[in-house]
Amino acid sequence: MPRISVLGCGRIGRMHADNIASHPRAELAGVFDVHAPSAEDVAGRHGVENFATADEAITSDTVDGVLIATPTSTHVEFLESSVNAGKPVLCEKPIDLSLAHVNALKARIAGTDVPIMLGFVRRFDPGHAAVRNAAASGEIGELHQVIITSRDPGMAPDGYIETSGGIFRDMTIHDLDLARFMLGEEIAEVFATGSRLVDPELMERCNDYDTVVVTLVTDSGKQAVITNSREAVYGYDQRVELFGSGGMLISGNRRENLVTKHLAGATNVAAPLQHFFIERYGEAFDAEIGHFVESIESGAPAPVGFEDGRLALLLAEACFESVAAGRTIKTSEIG
Amino acid sequence: MPRISVLGCGRIGRMHADNIASHPRAELAGVFDVHAPSAEDVAGRHGVENFATADEAITSDTVDGVLIATPTSTHVEFLESSVNAGKPVLCEKPIDLSLAHVNALKARIAGTDVPIMLGFVRRFDPGHAAVRNAAASGEIGELHQVIITSRDPGMAPDGYIETSGGIFRDMTIHDLDLARFMLGEEIAEVFATGSRLVDPELMERCNDYDTVVVTLVTDSGKQAVITNSREAVYGYDQRVELFGSGGMLISGNRRENLVTKHLAGATNVAAPLQHFFIERYGEAFDAEIGHFVESIESGAPAPVGFEDGRLALLLAEACFESVAAGRTIKTSEIG
Amino acid sequence: MPRISVLGCGRIGRMHADNIASHPRAELAGVFDVHAPSAEDVAGRHGVENFATADEAITSDTVDGVLIATPTSTHVEFLESSVNAGKPVLCEKPIDLSLAHVNALKARIAGTDVPIMLGFVRRFDPGHAAVRNAAASGEIGELHQVIITSRDPGMAPDGYIETSGGIFRDMTIHDLDLARFMLGEEIAEVFATGSRLVDPELMERCNDYDTVVVTLVTDSGKQAVITNSREAVYGYDQRVELFGSGGMLISGNRRENLVTKHLAGATNVAAPLQHFFIERYGEAFDAEIGHFVESIESGAPAPVGFEDGRLALLLAEACFESVAAGRTIKTSEIG
Amino acid sequence: MPRISVLGCGRIGRMHADNIASHPRAELAGVFDVHAPSAEDVAGRHGVENFATADEAITSDTVDGVLIATPTSTHVEFLESSVNAGKPVLCEKPIDLSLAHVNALKARIAGTDVPIMLGFVRRFDPGHAAVRNAAASGEIGELHQVIITSRDPGMAPDGYIETSGGIFRDMTIHDLDLARFMLGEEIAEVFATGSRLVDPELMERCNDYDTVVVTLVTDSGKQAVITNSREAVYGYDQRVELFGSGGMLISGNRRENLVTKHLAGATNVAAPLQHFFIERYGEAFDAEIGHFVESIESGAPAPVGFEDGRLALLLAEACFESVAAGRTIKTSEIG
Repeated sequence: MPRISVLGCGRIGRMHADNIASHPRAELAGVFDVHAPSAEDVAGRHGVENFATADEAITSDTVDGVLIATPTSTHVEFLESSVNAGKPVLCEKPIDLSLAHVNALKARIAGTDVPIMLGFVRRFDPGHAAVRNAAASGEIGELHQVIITSRDPGMAPDGYIETSGGIFRDMTIHDLDLARFMLGEEIAEVFATGSRLVDPELMERCNDYDTVVVTLVTDSGKQAVITNSREAVYGYDQRVELFGSGGMLISGNRRENLVTKHLAGATNVAAPLQHFFIERYGEAFDAEIGHFVESIESGAPAPVGFEDGRLALLLAEACFESVAAGRTIKTSEIG
Repeated sequence: MPRISVLGCGRIGRMHADNIASHPRAELAGVFDVHAPSAEDVAGRHGVENFATADEAITSDTVDGVLIATPTSTHVEFLESSVNAGKPVLCEKPIDLSLAHVNALKARIAGTDVPIMLGFVRRFDPGHAAVRNAAASGEIGELHQVIITSRDPGMAPDGYIETSGGIFRDMTIHDLDLARFMLGEEIAEVFATGSRLVDPELMERCNDYDTVVVTLVTDSGKQAVITNSREAVYGYDQRVELFGSGGMLISGNRRENLVTKHLAGATNVAAPLQHFFIERYGEAFDAEIGHFVESIESGAPAPVGFEDGRLALLLAEACFESVAAGRTIKTSEIG
Repeated sequence: MPRISVLGCGRIGRMHADNIASHPRAELAGVFDVHAPSAEDVAGRHGVENFATADEAITSDTVDGVLIATPTSTHVEFLESSVNAGKPVLCEKPIDLSLAHVNALKARIAGTDVPIMLGFVRRFDPGHAAVRNAAASGEIGELHQVIITSRDPGMAPDGYIETSGGIFRDMTIHDLDLARFMLGEEIAEVFATGSRLVDPELMERCNDYDTVVVTLVTDSGKQAVITNSREAVYGYDQRVELFGSGGMLISGNRRENLVTKHLAGATNVAAPLQHFFIERYGEAFDAEIGHFVESIESGAPAPVGFEDGRLALLLAEACFESVAAGRTIKTSEIG
Repeated sequence: MPRISVLGCGRIGRMHADNIASHPRAELAGVFDVHAPSAEDVAGRHGVENFATADEAITSDTVDGVLIATPTSTHVEFLESSVNAGKPVLCEKPIDLSLAHVNALKARIAGTDVPIMLGFVRRFDPGHAAVRNAAASGEIGELHQVIITSRDPGMAPDGYIETSGGIFRDMTIHDLDLARFMLGEEIAEVFATGSRLVDPELMERCNDYDTVVVTLVTDSGKQAVITNSREAVYGYDQRVELFGSGGMLISGNRRENLVTKHLAGATNVAAPLQHFFIERYGEAFDAEIGHFVESIESGAPAPVGFEDGRLALLLAEACFESVAAGRTIKTSEIG
């Protein structure tokens, strides 16, 4: 069973470490975090090594694959180290906030055959994957429109917002990747609009938006629409609608249970949506580890690769430019 | 266009009069009620005759068909008069509270070819009719179980309960007819249980039940279950489930509109159920008049006839006996 | 009861004539159509006058109000005649294909107090009206996003497409009005994208689109998204989603009945969507006549007026310009 | 972490062994099966002991708790051995096919404080547990009716049916326990009816039924209805409806994912139901182990005890008698 180390023991790193530890086909090799107590806690709980340095966590002989869940600013360095060490790597999104850095890294690692996987976990959600597969197999004829609704249950902490790189690079990036995945074609044009409705003061200060609509068009005219909000009080709203010449497919929201309540004045009341990504995409995170394990074992490319990470970032950049320019941005303008 | 008179201008009579008046293929000939102001009001509103006597409302040359919506105790008399006058008749359920009276009437009108229709309106509900037709055409293979849920939105007035003939003859009788309609086979055995949970004091006083479960079995072993309550605070709960060797069909509840609300702590909140039978079965009441009109025009038997009314009453009688005896009652015991 | 004449006896005119004839508070005064047999048919069916000319149908003393359902090119003339005759008028959308013509008419009828109502029927749908009222009364806090899905069940005939004025003026115009209605604020910016995916050859020939996405933004940053297609094989897809700081409201699709089928391999199979606008918006067309009747009786302005018709057309014009220019169009640019 | 041995390595035993092995708070101590290869397979897969005898698997010092998943005929013996060895025990249902044997065992182990838990796993389903808790906390006022729908996806193998003890003891027993759990009151009267509709020949031969309806009534008049079928072609149909003076709660079916398909002629098509109990009640089986672990650790009684197992069997016996007698059986008649 491949032994995987986890870099970064924050909320997402911990979740990945737990998933790997309990995965029937993977082993947790150890963890690393610059914040020693976080790493100690996770290492202790699973009885695994607490590596002294990131380099050790990557290069150790006891490590067959590396999962990067550290702050974004370190992704490029650790990703490059992993590739240089010949260690398959699963990197959380985004690769970097700067497309230039990513393009430079792309040049430096060109030609590598070390599997690189990007953490676009939503591709592995059973519902999202099912609609994509149904569309890909022609169940709704030719695909015409992809409608992605993606709203967080509540505003992230100020500190996160201030350094996230902006909503398009931090939040929409998942939906931009999902749009590419669903469309099955590259996106030619991007139009975005952003508003400050949830926390105008914070958004003003960060030059960011909390409520956005993005329209994407492929060369053949297929369309995708993404609607995002930083705060949906009814929970983590995650839906995908595929519309085509032969019908429509919808991947709906998930709830804690399938109970409905019927009371005076309110019928069919369903349970709240699953709160956030760790619950909502729990099965997807598990499946993601499974795909990574397969890449480690087979040496074959991962199902979501470096270029997917680069293109999602490029689309996020196009969104920012579109909002600023008030016009469609061609992806060829960004390069 | 057939001219139809309406006997009885209470809530149901008024509704029928309005439906006939606005029906594209029928005309309201006039109305009658022993309570003059009620009849005057309806006659005045539609500009039609206010017949002086029930007999006139039945025998007048201006009347092609008769709709009986008077109190139950008068049904037998008016039904017989209509048949004797050669006037097709649509009679609200039940024919009478006494099976003996109904059997006697049956003997007296034996051989008549005047169309007699019973007001088992639920047969004409678009949803209920659709599941019955789907089952009859084999869409779920052989039918095995029929599950009827039927709960009123609130307890009827005390005066109504005291003279209704009891829950089985007044309320369950609709479901007993629906069970026969859905099963497509005669019922051989009846088991019923009744409880006093909504208004125990009133039920005790009337020797009645407000919460009942009825199990019906045909000779071939098909089963039907009816659950009734006099009071569902979430509205008029009317569902039919057909289960067979090839699948299941469900005719669901109807709401004012198809809006859902998604709020903090409660998602998918649907509108209240349509309040009561006049709204819930509005399309069905319209369709019922249409079928009656066809019988008047063609002289052919109506889709729900006298014998359907008699058998539903017989089953209601069996329910009472079953509760009293704590055992299955064979319909052949009642006769 | 106000007597209303109907100009135009095509599909929509016939429907309006029928609705008026059976409306409890209105009377059908007569009809007119340049195609005599169509008018004769409707007049004959309802036993009403077949006016010799449009002018007669407008000015006759027997006419209290005028409903215009003739081809778009005649709307301006008949609307103006009605206003000049002092007859309240209900005009099908759009007022005209040319915003210049509409602006000129606006100038000519400035100051009139004759009620003018535009046929944006969707405002009167029970579901759409319910979500709008709920939002307006603060049930979801501040409104942030309006998502309108509007797809026809099938491509209109070639002849219709060739003269419709294009998808934005013919089809999207309903959704543009609905967006204004739901937002409760004027739209400041329009972005639109159009594709030719359903019938590329026809669209090419007509310089039109069959699949579009429109993004609308108000001055305060509220957003609306409209997705249209000329052909949804699963039926007439009509949904409105309102998202706000306090929750989400959805007005969903309507079906023939509320039956679900549960078969091997496919559960919860619901009935097809109601086929097209005459069924889907049947209750709304009825309510529309009711509002028109009230305006006739009271002389008060109708709930959807001339300016609503002009602004919807202005937005449609902005859509065409946005597609051509690949950029956001400010409504102030169009005037 | 408590070390638990599993007796029986058939389908259910294997599942339990896997669940215990991957449970964060339990350890798989080893397994036993009279069929050696089955035990070897499971033991090998998890690297645990393959006990030579059931006695060893119960009494070994390395065993803190015992899970009995062997054929029903051995339950009494292994349960008694576990109690005598002072080992907490989780026994699959039913305790035995004979109520007399169970009563005798009850007498022999009277006074023991060794935790005994019965495998009525449905109590731990998130949906079923949620409606029960909501009802228990008064969310629907006084409980009046419990409607349990429970249909298997397909007929079990002939061999299983022939030795299962009949549908009431083998299949309905789960629903009988669930009814007691939901009602929160003991059942006073039982009425059951059974038909042979799925496989009449097999049912005739086994003197069994494949399609049953059971009505249960408590002393206070609360009612429960169970409808069972051995074969629902649309999947494993598992629903609970609680109806009370203040509303209704429904625990609905579970599907593989939340995808809906909208095609020509069929909208809202949902995924098939989860196939069978191992998937459908997966979370419940996990929770069951968690409760057993707590009992082992604390020595406190388990949430479903021996008496629950005995009473469910008593109700199953009453069902058989009711079918035979065609009358209500009072539970006091069975004892």
